Order: sequence, then C-alpha cells, then structure tokens
Amino acid sequence: MARNNIVIVGGAAAGMTAATRIRRNRPEASVTVIEKGAYISYAACGLPYYVSDDIKDINKLILYTPQEIYDTYKIRVLTGHQVLNLHARNRQLEVRNLETGRISDIGYDRLILATGASPVIPDIPGSTLDGVYGLRNIDDALALKKNLESGLTRRAIIVGSGYLGLEMAEVLRKHSVDVLLIEAKPHLIDPFELEIASMVKNELLYNGCQIQKSVRLSGINGSSEGIHSVELDNGAEVLTDMVVFAAGIKPNVSLAKQAGISLGKSGAIRINNKQETSLQGVYAIGDCAEVRHRVTGKYVYSPQATSALKQARVAADNASGKFTKFEGITGTAIVKLFNLHVGRTGIDKSIVQALNLNVETATVEATSRAAYYPGAENLTAKIFFNTSDGQLLGAQMAGREGIAAGIDVFSSALHNKMTVFDMLHLDLSYTPPVAAAWNPVLLCAMQAVKKLNRRF
Amino acid sequence: MARNNIVIVGGAAAGMTAATRIRRNRPEASVTVIEKGAYISYAACGLPYYVSDDIKDINKLILYTPQEIYDTYKIRVLTGHQVLNLHARNRQLEVRNLETGRISDIGYDRLILATGASPVIPDIPGSTLDGVYGLRNIDDALALKKNLESGLTRRAIIVGSGYLGLEMAEVLRKHSVDVLLIEAKPHLIDPFELEIASMVKNELLYNGCQIQKSVRLSGINGSSEGIHSVELDNGAEVLTDMVVFAAGIKPNVSLAKQAGISLGKSGAIRINNKQETSLQGVYAIGDCAEVRHRVTGKYVYSPQATSALKQARVAADNASGKFTKFEGITGTAIVKLFNLHVGRTGIDKSIVQALNLNVETATVEATSRAAYYPGAENLTAKIFFNTSDGQLLGAQMAGREGIAAGIDVFSSALHNKMTVFDMLHLDLSYTPPVAAAWNPVLLCAMQAVKKLNRRF
Repeated sequence: MARNNIVIVGGAAAGMTAATRIRRNRPEASVTVIEKGAYISYAACGLPYYVSDDIKDINKLILYTPQEIYDTYKIRVLTGHQVLNLHARNRQLEVRNLETGRISDIGYDRLILATGASPVIPDIPGSTLDGVYGLRNIDDALALKKNLESGLTRRAIIVGSGYLGLEMAEVLRKHSVDVLLIEAKPHLIDPFELEIASMVKNELLYNGCQIQKSVRLSGINGSSEGIHSVELDNGAEVLTDMVVFAAGIKPNVSLAKQAGISLGKSGAIRINNKQETSLQGVYAIGDCAEVRHRVTGKYVYSPQATSALKQARVAADNASGKFTKFEGITGTAIVKLFNLHVGRTGIDKSIVQALNLNVETATVEATSRAAYYPGAENLTAKIFFNTSDGQLLGAQMAGREGIAAGIDVFSSALHNKMTVFDMLHLDLSYTPPVAAAWNPVLLCAMQAVKKLNRRF
Repeated sequence: MARNNIVIVGGAAAGMTAATRIRRNRPEASVTVIEKGAYISYAACGLPYYVSDDIKDINKLILYTPQEIYDTYKIRVLTGHQVLNLHARNRQLEVRNLETGRISDIGYDRLILATGASPVIPDIPGSTLDGVYGLRNIDDALALKKNLESGLTRRAIIVGSGYLGLEMAEVLRKHSVDVLLIEAKPHLIDPFELEIASMVKNELLYNGCQIQKSVRLSGINGSSEGIHSVELDNGAEVLTDMVVFAAGIKPNVSLAKQAGISLGKSGAIRINNKQETSLQGVYAIGDCAEVRHRVTGKYVYSPQATSALKQARVAADNASGKFTKFEGITGTAIVKLFNLHVGRTGIDKSIVQALNLNVETATVEATSRAAYYPGAENLTAKIFFNTSDGQLLGAQMAGREGIAAGIDVFSSALHNKMTVFDMLHLDLSYTPPVAAAWNPVLLCAMQAVKKLNRRF
C-alpha cells in the first residue's frame, strides 16, 4: 500500500514531532499537517510560565512557524483548517478553511490523529462568560496573560488541584491575585497519598492561597462586563474576577468517533503498540489516545508530553513503513508549585485496590543532600510494593529538590520490574552538596525489606 | 561456631555502620570497635566542606561520640588503640593503647576489618614537612582549617585532579588562596572523557585556579618554619605555602597482610559476596577492600562511601549469622567543583579497551530544564555501548544541575543490563522548570540507536 501521502491532524508538539520524523524517514513523501488553530509546534507545558511572566516572549514556546517548517522540512501546514469528516473507505478528509468557510477534500495514504484534548468544563450557568479560562493552547495563554497584566483581576478561583491547578496557583500569586483553589475530592492532588497531599496543602497555604475541599462549582455569575462571583454546591457565594478550569482534560475524539474508530474504556482512542487505531493505516498519538501502562499491562488514559513525543516517533515510523513499537509508560509525572516539587510513578492505591494485589507501603523522610550540608531539604518518599514477591509497584515523592532524580530511579526500577530486594543494591550518586549517602530510593527499599522480613 | 563476641577494626562510617547493625541483629552479643584515632562515626566525604567553612562546626560531621554509641547501642569503642597483630589461629588481636603504650590481647568470634585507606604520598624530599597535607580524617580537617584561617597561606599546590583535588580547589579558593593544580596525566580527572575534562578545566580556570598537566612533584622545599616552594619534574620551581596531596588513596592492608589474608590484584583485600576474606570469620569492608563491578563481573578497587555502607550491612549480617550478599557496584561517582557537577557510572574507555569490547559512543548536549525556562543549564552526556547487542556499558555527564539525576538513571540501566533500544522507552520526569521533555538519557539512547541502525 502506498505511503506517499501522509496527513497529520493536529499541529501541536506530538503532531509536529511525527511530521518531522516522517520527513526524515521518507524524504520523497508528501507530508501535510492540518491544524484548527493559528499556531503549531508549541510547548504546551510551558504555557503557565508565559502567563506567569517567567517567560516574556510567547515565541520562545513556539519551535517553528508554518513557514519555517515548510522551508526546513517541506512539510505543508494548513493552519485555521478543521477536519469535519474522515471517510475511511476512500481515505479522504473533508476539511473546512475556517477563515473562508470553503470546504475541500484531502486524501491520504496514512493518517495520524494528534487531535489533543480539551479542558473538562462542567455544564453550569455562566461557564462561557468572559473571565472563565482554560489553559491548553497559545490563544488561551495570550488571553490569560492579557487579563492578568491589565491589573483588574484581584481575585481568582481555580477549579481542580491537579498539576495545572497547582501550577496556576503559583502563576496567579506571581500576579498578586488572591487565589481560592477548590477541589471536588476530599483531598488535594488525587491520586497522591495523604502525606504528599498535606505537603502540597502547606505549600499553597504558605504562599497565600486559600483552599476548599469537597466542594464543586455550581454556577458563575456575571454579565457581558465579566464575572463577579461563583456559587459553590455548599451554598456559598464567593466573589471573584476570574475562574480557571483545571479539573482535568478529556480527549478530542469526535473525529475518530465519526469515522467509526474504536475508543478504549477510558474514552480515548484505542491503539496497539504501533499506535495504529482500529482503522488500518490510521494512527493516534498524544492526548487523544490511550497508552499502555507497563505495571498493569492495561491501556489507560494518561496524557503526558513525554509519552506523546515517544508515540509520535513510533507512529511516524510505522506510517512511513518502518516497524517500531511503543513499550508503554510506567506512569511518571512531576509538578512544581512554588518551591515544592511533587512526583509519582507506577500505580497508586486505587489501582492497587482494583487489582486486588497484596500490597504494603514504605514511607521515609530523607534529605536532598547530606543532612549536614547547607541547603539540604527534607523530602518524603512513599512506595507501594507487592508483598508476595517484593516487586515495586509505585512511588510518590515531594520536597524542594531531588524529586525528579528519585522518581526517575523508581521509574527505571518499575521499567525493569525490580524488587525491593534488588533495589537495595542500586549504586546511586553521592556527594554531600548534591545527594545524601543513603539515597531516598535505598531508604525506601531498606524499609520495605525490613517489613517483608518481619512477615516471614 | 560462636558469634557472641564481634570485633571491628576501624571506627569510621563503614565500621560504625557494621557495629550498629550487628547490635540490631544480635542484642545479646558483645560488640567492640577498635579505632586508632580519636574520632569515630564521622562523614569523611563532608570534611572538605568543614575546611571550606560551609560547615562551621566539626561536630556536625560526627554522628556519635564513643560515649554516645555506648549509651545508645552498648557498643564498646576503644579510640586511640592500634591493632598490631592478628593471630588468626586463636582469634586474638594484639592491641596497643597509643596513650599508655600498654599492649593487650582482645579475642573475637567474628572480626570485621574496616581499616580504610591513606592518601598516596610520593617518596620525595620534603613530603613530611609542615604545610604538607592530605585530607582523610578529622585531624587532617582540623589542621587544614586552622592553617587556612590563620590567613598566612597565600599559595597552595594541589597534587592530583581526582575528586578530592577538584573539591580542594574550591575549598582553597573560598579561603582566597592562589591555587595551582598539578596533574601527572595529560588530562584532568582521568578516566573521564575529554569532553568532560575540558568542562572541568574551564570551571577551574573560570574560578581562578592555575593548572599544569603532565607534570609531577619532585621535591618540596622548606624548613621547620614550613614550606616555601616545590620542584616539578619539568625543572620548574614554584613558590607555595601549602601542598595538598589528592593523588588517590591506597588501601590500609598491613594488618591483613600480616595475618596472611589474601589481597586482590588491586592490592586491596579480596572478599567474596558475603564480604568474607580468605580467613574464615574475618570480613573486610569499605576503603580497605575490593568490590565486584557488575558490568565486568571483576573485583576492583573502587572505594566509595555508598558501597562501603552497603558492604558494612552485608558483613554485619553475615558476621551475626544472617546470610545476605552484596551484589556489587555499577561504578557510580559524582563530584561538585564550584558550580559544576560531574558524574560517571559503568566502565570507561580504558576498561573497554582492556576487555576488547566492540564499543561505540554517543554524546549529546542537552539542557537541565526545558530550554526556554529561565535557569536552564547546558549539560553534556556521553555513553559507551556495546555494538554487538546495544548494551549500555558506561556513562559520563557534566553540567550545573541535573547530573546526579541522569547518572542515577544510567546506573539503574546498567544494574539491569539495559540496551540502548530499551532505554528509549524509559518514562522519565518532565516539567519545564525541573527537567526537559527529552531527558539526556533518552537523547543518548536515541543517538546510540541511530548509530546502531546505520550499521545494519
């Protein structure tokens, strides 16, 4: 089957990574990217830091303009174009030019869907008023920063205490905005453990954020002039000038659905280890697709930039006739809020319970450098391990430094299905100004082994 | 055989770690530590930071005094006692009280040698003059700091560009001392690769240190008043007030030798995976002993605090009747000099050549955070991998942050005998202020895979 005409829907990081890799693989192929918005090839994870003004120039987050990508890679990019329909039988896309309204057909030999995700915005009164924001793309970032730089926003409500919600708390405090963070669950940053969640709570409070848990937004009040208050489902009415929705994202799958492509249980596009969907010759990558979790072996919805980029390479290879596989994730994610770093990898308590595993935990307090060295910071690490064989199942950490380092070792251990017995022997870096002689990973393994030895 | 009376020779970190673990394992046993010096249980790796005055109080580096260890653990510590002879046949030590000169016999059921190492000091004229220093123990640190705080030392020569030499360069510059670092080999910080060595050189120069390579000390000139100059083997005579020997260490094995304990090819004490020496019931740990390198499977001399502590636990377990094994090292080490962090793990070029392996390298320049995020620092990573199967063999990194994190992932990969193909799939931390989307480990793996694919 021909692979001369490859089309990608979606021009954010995953789509453009796939496009440039296809070009490298197949110098002679036609490569076209169709993007609804005006920008391509941007670092979405960097947007909060543009809004915070840590990054002054939005162009720093944009790797290529459409013209640059054409000049460098001869990749044709159609920005401001929306794919209305996917006709799988004759491999055609029905595409609308959003500026002119003109509709045309674009054929493909291979198609990659990189349609991304959208913020979850509840269907409540006022949710479309000016002053209500999400943060997924360049337009969102420009609008949010413009608002904050006007100086007119004094109070903001953040809905959700996931990674974006916590990052936005820092962003808004940098603009001296009074922040109220509301979380529907009874504790913050689910699915982190309480030890970690309480460190997150303290960091928010220390930095002047208010928090309300176990509460939902039930309405937003305002007019064409903007918003002035919100209503909570506990009956409270709270004054605010801004609402930021950070209560998770949902995969953009309407095109896939229309085309009859199978979705997984999670609602995201089901793929195999070649990133191929149920439709032959059609691949899906990034935030619209599922991903295989190595620890459970199951496909889940776990949108992360790092796996999106890996999936993009794999889909690009397979679309251009080179067989490669994506081996799945261990579930690594990390976030910084103010001076606290929080990370996790592997599976969490809810999944452990769902799988009915025999699990024990080990929790340690450690220091990021030798305890006696100036600047050593306390950190907390907690692991889950299988009591039947000692296999590591998951890890969570929080502290002011050394978190990425620890999580990456735990992730490597999960990747290799290491037991806590074997982890005891990891040969990890030590020098007093940079790391402690007993790395937190080793301390966790020691405590876990002690618990297991006591059982037998 | 009885294990009621366990004796440890050497009261630094390894010896005391063994002692306290034996106490935990066997609450009823008699545990005795014999230490030549006045101090026990100190963090030797922290000594440079006491000398630099980053740490003001030497007691911060001392975990326990002999009295405290007795009160807490009922471990008897004889400081100021030297073991003169080991009579293996009747399990007796001949011990001299260095204060009184009195000699007595101390019996043991199990013995652990933690006799440490000494600086390599060449046999040249003047090497015992005042003003000539090593830095291995508390007394060395007190003497060096006293000298530097006198303000009378204006110029110093550091002999050797290994970890201690580089740390001492920073220490001496903090005291505003003019530093000349001399290295016998033609490049610094052997066995690091040239890319890394040149970053080390630049960091030293930027911080006002002078460097001479391919040169050795041939004499030290001075009198009872102190030293005033040194002679180099290139004929130069250089004025100096201080010489610091940092040209490596040699294991303290005279007691082991006297007792007929086998040494390895490296000259350090040969041990098995239980840390047992050739003499039944006698164990050796830490800087006096060899260690098995997991990558080559061979026993080598590679003294590191982290493996000393692990060996201490293993020797303590076996000495107290609990079978555990030490699984060996991957060869991880890291050093900070000024603002540069430098690390390595696995094997280096000289070992690769000695083993006659088919090896290729991959070198990448990366950033410690997202490239667009303020404070992102450049770093260099270089790996060695086997071209026959893609297995990772070693890694070296240098940069201002993120080095320990990367080296620890490489070390975990080596521990698990990962190939560069498999490393591509590691799920590593990413958030713009803390780490880049393409971790340096992944970039190295990508480049290595590209090289391997080109070959086939």
